Amino acid sequence: MKQKILILGAGRAATALIDYLLNEAAKNDWFVTVADFDEELAKEKVGHSGNGRAVQLNISNTKKRRELIQEADIVVSLLPVNLHYLVVKDCLTYKKHIVTASYLSQEMYGLDREARKAAIVMVGEMGLDPGIDHMSAMEKIDALRADNCKIIAFRSYTGGLVSKENLADNPWNYKFTWNPRNVVLAGQGTAQYISEGKYKYIPYNRVFQRLDEIRVDGIGKLEAYVNRDSLLYKTLYHLEDIPTLIRYTLRYPGYCRAWNALVKLGWTDDTYPIIDSELMTYRELLESYLRGVFKQYPAGYNLRNHLADFLRIDRSDPVIEKLEWLGIFEKTPIEVKNASPAVILQNLLQKKWKLQPDDKDLIVMQHQFDYEKNGKQFRLSSTMKMYGEDSVHTAMSKLVGLPIGIFVKLTLQDQLKLRGVHIPVIPEIYTPVLAELSELGVRFEDKVQELKAE
Amino acid sequence: MKQKILILGAGRAATALIDYLLNEAAKNDWFVTVADFDEELAKEKVGHSGNGRAVQLNISNTKKRRELIQEADIVVSLLPVNLHYLVVKDCLTYKKHIVTASYLSQEMYGLDREARKAAIVMVGEMGLDPGIDHMSAMEKIDALRADNCKIIAFRSYTGGLVSKENLADNPWNYKFTWNPRNVVLAGQGTAQYISEGKYKYIPYNRVFQRLDEIRVDGIGKLEAYVNRDSLLYKTLYHLEDIPTLIRYTLRYPGYCRAWNALVKLGWTDDTYPIIDSELMTYRELLESYLRGVFKQYPAGYNLRNHLADFLRIDRSDPVIEKLEWLGIFEKTPIEVKNASPAVILQNLLQKKWKLQPDDKDLIVMQHQFDYEKNGKQFRLSSTMKMYGEDSVHTAMSKLVGLPIGIFVKLTLQDQLKLRGVHIPVIPEIYTPVLAELSELGVRFEDKVQELKAE
Repeated sequence: MKQKILILGAGRAATALIDYLLNEAAKNDWFVTVADFDEELAKEKVGHSGNGRAVQLNISNTKKRRELIQEADIVVSLLPVNLHYLVVKDCLTYKKHIVTASYLSQEMYGLDREARKAAIVMVGEMGLDPGIDHMSAMEKIDALRADNCKIIAFRSYTGGLVSKENLADNPWNYKFTWNPRNVVLAGQGTAQYISEGKYKYIPYNRVFQRLDEIRVDGIGKLEAYVNRDSLLYKTLYHLEDIPTLIRYTLRYPGYCRAWNALVKLGWTDDTYPIIDSELMTYRELLESYLRGVFKQYPAGYNLRNHLADFLRIDRSDPVIEKLEWLGIFEKTPIEVKNASPAVILQNLLQKKWKLQPDDKDLIVMQHQFDYEKNGKQFRLSSTMKMYGEDSVHTAMSKLVGLPIGIFVKLTLQDQLKLRGVHIPVIPEIYTPVLAELSELGVRFEDKVQELKAE
Repeated sequence: MKQKILILGAGRAATALIDYLLNEAAKNDWFVTVADFDEELAKEKVGHSGNGRAVQLNISNTKKRRELIQEADIVVSLLPVNLHYLVVKDCLTYKKHIVTASYLSQEMYGLDREARKAAIVMVGEMGLDPGIDHMSAMEKIDALRADNCKIIAFRSYTGGLVSKENLADNPWNYKFTWNPRNVVLAGQGTAQYISEGKYKYIPYNRVFQRLDEIRVDGIGKLEAYVNRDSLLYKTLYHLEDIPTLIRYTLRYPGYCRAWNALVKLGWTDDTYPIIDSELMTYRELLESYLRGVFKQYPAGYNLRNHLADFLRIDRSDPVIEKLEWLGIFEKTPIEVKNASPAVILQNLLQKKWKLQPDDKDLIVMQHQFDYEKNGKQFRLSSTMKMYGEDSVHTAMSKLVGLPIGIFVKLTLQDQLKLRGVHIPVIPEIYTPVLAELSELGVRFEDKVQELKAE
């Protein structure tokens, strides 16, 4: 009987996955069903392939959802995190494998025994970040250990950027390629990491000030701010005794300083609504956060200078240029109703930081491992970068979709016989998946240098 | 039949209230029951009065609680806010008046009809702040309106301080006289106020930087930071069209700048635990928030200077002296387990900012009303200040307890025939209560000056 794949969700992240699996379906005589609330979107992605079909699905329609899952051999869920659990429960009931790109919850981990009993595999964190980051890091960690190296530091950097050529008139050097809301709220909560055996904390008011940097061949210098969640990776990667462990997000230089101005201003706060925001302009909103703005402006008054003084930066600081480019000094209506500052800002940024049809996104990932071997210290840097083709065929879509697609293929071909609940930190998964990713052009370049004592 | 008063809670805020009501009980042939979980505490407060008794009460003991409430004619609840509702429900059932010093919830306001039907009065916000602030402000507002004045600005300042003579060796010029947790978390969320017809917002990272000041006779200059909740008072005080409305908290000069250093450091965050905090010293905690602290300190290394650089302040800034005085550079164990930074800080401050037995607390309240009359602009400043006698007979306890006590007396004497749910913003309450407060030494001094156009 023909094996069947069900893909739930046909959005931006699904493009490369659907292409890959339709292509594999043709070779292996499989059949792919792509279900989305937006049937047209699903049809567009399936195209004229004879090995797939598009169906309309409202995920809360239990009957139809279960029918589709029952027909399938393996399910890929690209649904929002909060909807996964519905699908997961159905997959357990009907004994279907399931793969997702989302973080696994404790609830999901708790289903391991049930999944083994049902003889199915449930894999999460199988996309890019989380996903490729796990696999590429664990491959190195396991190899270093096998080589009797003692890992003394692990730093990991990931950024979703845009090709420089598409940023000519964008002083932020940034456009949205991932979830805009996550970008606006990034860094809230407290960043936690370990440095030389000590826990370190960076409160939100300092995250975008406390920067590190890396250099990437062909791209140059990138700045890095610390992620909030580094500590989790101690257990996940079995690095319980590592003295230094830190995860970063990458941006082109200058971004964080300007973003920090928006943080200081209070515009990333999502906890209270701006009263009558729909009646205000961006300029008026800005004035609401500045002190002593005049009813009648005196001669020579300049809101840009006022803001620079408020931020305690030079009036000619490039931060002001970036803020001006966003239009926050303009009498443009905000339009969104009783919205939080964060929602208003996101709305503005979605206009300014919109990926244009021909824009190429750029994903950069670098792991740095410091280790000791034979009494000497070394640093292994392992770097992957990938450009998208355009705003539909993005690097992000490839890097999220391909590992999932490969995992689906290996499972249907019975090359991967894993059962239970997993994330791809184990060689059974990362070895074959990374091997095929490499064939598809997703390659990490390694460099080793000796670290001399200061 | 003898009228009976039930007071729930015999803590610090209850002292003056119990004294006042025992005294009135003697004059009026009433009887006062003071119930507390800590029977000894209740006994201590009742003393040898023949007009009162102390009883032990666990408030979640429904049977005993209801027995006590049934016996009473009026109930005063000084319980923590979350326990009020239990008592309120019982008071409705048994048709007993109830008075509290806490903020009224929407839930409480919703009981107005039921309270009227039961022919009882339920009064909240009857202490100092909220309480005396409402009464003293509304008295002026109603008087100004009756005098055909147009109020164009209302600024209100309140501070719980300590007499200067008790602060000789305390560079912060502050000790805890109110709830320590509220002091540590003060300013979180976003301060909102209205200035010249515009809504203004101050994010937490700026609250302790954006200071105003007032001068009080006999005390001198005080600094004022903005409260988060000014907007609520528009409706509460019927000031819907007022162009400027702002509420402040008062401190001695220099406090806010130093407190802001703790905010910047991230030590007022209550959202995450410090791992293994019980194994750390304050110095180690501090190092966890600083960058690049050395395993082995180089010659000449100085953590104070490091912190000053981190805070971007001068190394001789008095802020550093204040922080040093708290002991944050010392290798003293933190002791509290897996605690948030805010809890650790509170624990430290409770040792350093402890009110000594003979210390006199000081309450300052000032309202400023700007108004127009006959084409001219004036400012009315109305100021109250009160010193405590010692750490038991505090000004705070008097100013919280006396208005409640007076309200109880007026109700039992049938001078106040109010029914339903109220806060003291109406003349029926504030006129007689303020009159008696004045006899008891709680007086506002008024000053009017003309405001000249700039």
